[in-house]
Amino acid sequence: MMRTRPLKVALLGCGVVGSEVARIMTTHADDLTARIGAPVELAGVAVRRPDRVREGIDQDLVTTDATALVKRGDIDVVVEVIGGIEPARTLITTAFEHGASVVSANKALLAQDGAALHAAAGQHDKDLYYEAAVAGAIPLLRPLRESLAGDKINRVMGIVNGTTNFILDKMDSTGAGYQEALDEATALGYAEADPTADVEGFDAAAKAAILAGISFHTRVRLDDVYREGMTEVTAADFASAREMGCTIKLLAICERAADGASVTARVHPAMIPLSHPLASVRGAYNAVFVESDAAGQLMFYGPGAGGSPTASAVLGDLVAVCRNRLNGATGPGESAYAALPVSPMGDVVTRYHISLDVADKPGVLAQVATVFAEHGVSIDTVRQQGKDGEASLVVVTHRASDAALTGTVEALRKLDTVRGVASIMRVEGE
Amino acid sequence: MMRTRPLKVALLGCGVVGSEVARIMTTHADDLTARIGAPVELAGVAVRRPDRVREGIDQDLVTTDATALVKRGDIDVVVEVIGGIEPARTLITTAFEHGASVVSANKALLAQDGAALHAAAGQHDKDLYYEAAVAGAIPLLRPLRESLAGDKINRVMGIVNGTTNFILDKMDSTGAGYQEALDEATALGYAEADPTADVEGFDAAAKAAILAGISFHTRVRLDDVYREGMTEVTAADFASAREMGCTIKLLAICERAADGASVTARVHPAMIPLSHPLASVRGAYNAVFVESDAAGQLMFYGPGAGGSPTASAVLGDLVAVCRNRLNGATGPGESAYAALPVSPMGDVVTRYHISLDVADKPGVLAQVATVFAEHGVSIDTVRQQGKDGEASLVVVTHRASDAALTGTVEALRKLDTVRGVASIMRVEGE
Repeated sequence: MMRTRPLKVALLGCGVVGSEVARIMTTHADDLTARIGAPVELAGVAVRRPDRVREGIDQDLVTTDATALVKRGDIDVVVEVIGGIEPARTLITTAFEHGASVVSANKALLAQDGAALHAAAGQHDKDLYYEAAVAGAIPLLRPLRESLAGDKINRVMGIVNGTTNFILDKMDSTGAGYQEALDEATALGYAEADPTADVEGFDAAAKAAILAGISFHTRVRLDDVYREGMTEVTAADFASAREMGCTIKLLAICERAADGASVTARVHPAMIPLSHPLASVRGAYNAVFVESDAAGQLMFYGPGAGGSPTASAVLGDLVAVCRNRLNGATGPGESAYAALPVSPMGDVVTRYHISLDVADKPGVLAQVATVFAEHGVSIDTVRQQGKDGEASLVVVTHRASDAALTGTVEALRKLDTVRGVASIMRVEGE
Repeated sequence: MMRTRPLKVALLGCGVVGSEVARIMTTHADDLTARIGAPVELAGVAVRRPDRVREGIDQDLVTTDATALVKRGDIDVVVEVIGGIEPARTLITTAFEHGASVVSANKALLAQDGAALHAAAGQHDKDLYYEAAVAGAIPLLRPLRESLAGDKINRVMGIVNGTTNFILDKMDSTGAGYQEALDEATALGYAEADPTADVEGFDAAAKAAILAGISFHTRVRLDDVYREGMTEVTAADFASAREMGCTIKLLAICERAADGASVTARVHPAMIPLSHPLASVRGAYNAVFVESDAAGQLMFYGPGAGGSPTASAVLGDLVAVCRNRLNGATGPGESAYAALPVSPMGDVVTRYHISLDVADKPGVLAQVATVFAEHGVSIDTVRQQGKDGEASLVVVTHRASDAALTGTVEALRKLDTVRGVASIMRVEGE
């Protein structure tokens, strides 16, 4: 049942990802036709700089007027790989209004305005797919929302930012400090000139919001995600981690509360045991570990960024959306029926590794232990090291709420014998 | 757009997997309704022993007449978890004829008769889904045929049998021999009383046929898959592997030839480097490593068997098939348009680790090296160990065809100075 009239695709953006999407649409045209059931045709490419030579793209297709392109009315699918909030948001809603479905790779936009965009898609009975927005090439959103649609996901914990994983892996394997590792990441092109979005966890937080929403069938906004960057992770932290048989990763963690009545989403550096599958994720790779009622423990691993990997995810969505269109149907839309509240960070329960600089005199440990006990935080292990009248105390706790831990740390800071809190790090994946 | 008339599901088989499917359909009914857009109702359960008490299943639904159940005409989806070729095959085709779509977990049947079953589904415009047939709970077939539909998969290499991975992992970690490790697997319920299907690679070969077909959009029959079991892997092989920085896994490997014009599929034990992501897959877990043009290297990891994990995969398919039905559409059917020939094992190119027992006298290495050279097999490293007039030679080759290697080994056996070929093992994942 092959259709000969082609499906028309408008490409918004022709940078690293867009040019790769266009290239594969051309070089793999026959495969795409066979897999979709109709040919797909690149009908227009909206760019900012039309004079730049783009190999393999017919110059007649290039336009600077993205709005006119999505309003043409004959476009079946708009592929948005511009990134950022505007003009992407307006272009996507305009596309729906003019009869097109949309494939996007825009994590920031989906995390911030996913609900409104899904509503616009639903209103016009169009598809909105965005596999490429989280973990690049790794098939993740489709497995979560389709393969696991008959299961109950309880926890999603992932390395979803390749830049920070590259930096942390470098620190771990070479003993380098943060700045040195960042400089190398920048030199190798793994970090951008302004690395803020990556190293401060903004990028991972957007992905956490999307993952939590899909996994728990509820709405999680970017503002709901607790976020801590990894710029303060030190070589000393890695040494402490190694002593515990752990390494340090920047993790996005989405959890259903034990009673099932609420969810949390957070991004922060954490120690994880070397035996955990996420611990061996090296370089700029991404991986997401999923725990569900029936399936148990799953992991999805692969490249989280880059032109070709992201294009792979975009094209997988393009095939699906084109197939839906030929079927006169749409794929699964937003599923937020569970409408679970998002709990604040204080409610998160986990373990903590705390390093304190203390006076080297008798009774300090008793004082410190009393503060933990008063705040209901149970100590698992404690290790004392003294040198030259100074001493350090390393405390690893049992599971406690973030609020209780925060209270404990505030009280510790007020003790005369505590000179400073050198580091606090959560311990996950045990 | 919630529909209130329920979709009717017939369950064929109510063993470990079927009972878990029924249980989750009941306990998660509200979630399934929300995710599908209509309620699903268990309309009948076909079993062999109707008198066995099945907790949570209405006895009125139980029947021994599976044929009558699939012929009822009001069934929307038939879930087949009987396994084996017949009566499963006839029941599935009968289901299509009577208007139902089918979700199956039956790897043996799909590997043997996938083409005919897909044709029957297509003829009646019905769905045939079988995520649970390969790698249990791991979302794998949907990612391969949907998420990667815009990409070109070149290689799929996986641990797809949990029983053999448990045995090999045990041998690796404890130094146990094959029989001892098998006995423990049997005692713990990881191996069946008759472990032939697992340890001789039949189970993995069925999965390889399915994986190759989906990955390369071509038809690969069970008979096309080269198969070697793992019963002859010894503790000595593991010692050799460790010396090379490797471990041993039973792998299913599906490859596109370098020229793209043919494919191969095979199952055999192989050495893989400890640094390869598959090397750290422990116990009865499964994992599948995928290499594609655009996405690069991906890995999917999780439990490959068991009632709950398999039920998770079955229910994910059930939700998808029900959604398609409400949309009046079907999902992607068999995609075999590429129609690539399957090359014989002799054409497979890889590296080899060969242990020879040889006479401990001058000139043996020269003789052996000449045989390799005459067959066009280039040697990477060779290691000699002598003791008591006996000696062993361990040869690791560069990449060579299986045919060339086979010819080399035949010629080696004819040398006076070669007392025996102690082991031949392929080296993969480098």
